[in-house]
Amino acid sequence: MRILIDVMGLDKGLEVMIKSSLDALDQKDFTPIFVGPEDQIVQLIPPSLKNKVEIIKANDWIKNDESPVMAIRKKKDASMVRALYALKNGEADGMISAGSTGAILAGASLIVGRIKNIDRAAITLILPGFKGRTIMLDVGANVDISADLIGQFAQMGSSYAKVLLETDKPRVGLLNIGTEEGKGNDLCIRSYDLLKESDLNFIGNIEPYDLLSTDADVLVTDGFTGNIALKTLEGTTKTFGRVLKDITKRSFLAKVGVGLLSIEGKRTIKVLEIDKIGAAPLLGSKKPIFKAHGSSTGDQISAGIVQLIDFIEKDVIRDIEKSMGE
Amino acid sequence: MRILIDVMGLDKGLEVMIKSSLDALDQKDFTPIFVGPEDQIVQLIPPSLKNKVEIIKANDWIKNDESPVMAIRKKKDASMVRALYALKNGEADGMISAGSTGAILAGASLIVGRIKNIDRAAITLILPGFKGRTIMLDVGANVDISADLIGQFAQMGSSYAKVLLETDKPRVGLLNIGTEEGKGNDLCIRSYDLLKESDLNFIGNIEPYDLLSTDADVLVTDGFTGNIALKTLEGTTKTFGRVLKDITKRSFLAKVGVGLLSIEGKRTIKVLEIDKIGAAPLLGSKKPIFKAHGSSTGDQISAGIVQLIDFIEKDVIRDIEKSMGE
Repeated sequence: MRILIDVMGLDKGLEVMIKSSLDALDQKDFTPIFVGPEDQIVQLIPPSLKNKVEIIKANDWIKNDESPVMAIRKKKDASMVRALYALKNGEADGMISAGSTGAILAGASLIVGRIKNIDRAAITLILPGFKGRTIMLDVGANVDISADLIGQFAQMGSSYAKVLLETDKPRVGLLNIGTEEGKGNDLCIRSYDLLKESDLNFIGNIEPYDLLSTDADVLVTDGFTGNIALKTLEGTTKTFGRVLKDITKRSFLAKVGVGLLSIEGKRTIKVLEIDKIGAAPLLGSKKPIFKAHGSSTGDQISAGIVQLIDFIEKDVIRDIEKSMGE
Repeated sequence: MRILIDVMGLDKGLEVMIKSSLDALDQKDFTPIFVGPEDQIVQLIPPSLKNKVEIIKANDWIKNDESPVMAIRKKKDASMVRALYALKNGEADGMISAGSTGAILAGASLIVGRIKNIDRAAITLILPGFKGRTIMLDVGANVDISADLIGQFAQMGSSYAKVLLETDKPRVGLLNIGTEEGKGNDLCIRSYDLLKESDLNFIGNIEPYDLLSTDADVLVTDGFTGNIALKTLEGTTKTFGRVLKDITKRSFLAKVGVGLLSIEGKRTIKVLEIDKIGAAPLLGSKKPIFKAHGSSTGDQISAGIVQLIDFIEKDVIRDIEKSMGE
């Protein structure tokens, strides 16, 4: 298994991107192919791993404020562009990047290509939850879209769910501000009608209250709404973590309290490993591409790579191609 | 101070609506005017409070699945309609309802009327947070709107913030999926341009990560996006509560841990009293109207009534009228 790692784009720097990629070797066996400035990468590989990794030189990178399409077309020596071409040319089985979302989407379309009958690729997320995992899409790629695209997302999500969640008839829900039919904005109302008429196992509208406790195996939404929900979820989680930290700093008793809690709570909290939501597949791309947040921690990058390898091992893309009539 | 309480529409029933309204008397002095089925209301008032409350008879109510405009027009004997007319006719200083959001918005427009130069009323929420409170709107009233309306929300929110948060130049943020200019959907991009050109103190895009730790005094968004963010926030909070409960049920040590934590954490957690987000004003209405969730707890209803009285005491509506050029 060969994995391309775009070392540029992570807020914490390429040191963390490289170190956390190497940490993932503890969980999965693969060959990391680091793409970026060779001098810096070489210095960050421990001597014992020198023979285990490969490097593709790239002396430029794409920033978040650049025009995605222009950057992908013009910056031939950017790490993301080099990685995308290596992926397209079959030099690796998959790639991960924490760089510009717009650029990687543009690159997935322009360089790697989309699965037949899919108009746009979507960013997908595996939500943990009390009733099992939920595949949510789109969580950030496509804003201002049509109900037809929501239908494609539902189809791709269902294919993915069959493989990943091992369920025959994945339950598909629509993220909305009310459970009743007719609720929501124009896009929701049109999408509801379309999903109801489809051959998918549509279970209706799902409110964001239930993001972590939904019966849905697949939760579809547009990229703007999905990104709002995802970032609210993450922000709230972080805030709670900060509250706990703040309390324990001020009080020894509270520290003991958190200690006792964490000993006993590990199993339950495992269900809700929000921090382990490391990276998400671009569903619709012809080859496996995972996108991590720019603000990801090292643990999130490691987890993202493990998820990517799992995605490749289960050959999710072949399954989507079949379902889309290839 | 006279407050109309629509007793119908709360999931937990009118018993809880009435009891929690009476509980609010411990915090604020006011005359509750219960609007609904007289026989049932009478039975739920303790003898000692009989002289403290009033009742307006209403034998019907508006359900969530009814057409809001039709229901407001046709159901003259519905509790919400009777309350809205009593408010319009000056029989009370404000009203609260946990009934249909669509109906109360329609009623606010058709019966009570809007402030001059405001096209639509918005549902507002006071977000608690580490850096102080934030007035967020719209959190559920208006989906599929224009940038002009976002501009009006910003103006109303600023007026409210001057009074409620006692700040001269309220900082206005736009809820968006990225901080940079040019991010987001078409509505966000247009709204950004409009707010940048306005005389408001616009501080740019705010990501949902920062909902509980933003510098913004006012956070504007459309009602669909705002409702998604709000319900995600509430759902995540509830999930964490459930996790704690689940852990403490299984383990005595964990119970001791939570006990120690809650003794020491009270002050910090007070900042984040999400459960105390009881109800929200319909900003833009000519008279004070607060809308509570149908799924509210008794504590949330009590807190909502206290917030409503505060809103009336601080004469927020007069301030908005002035700012809108009345």
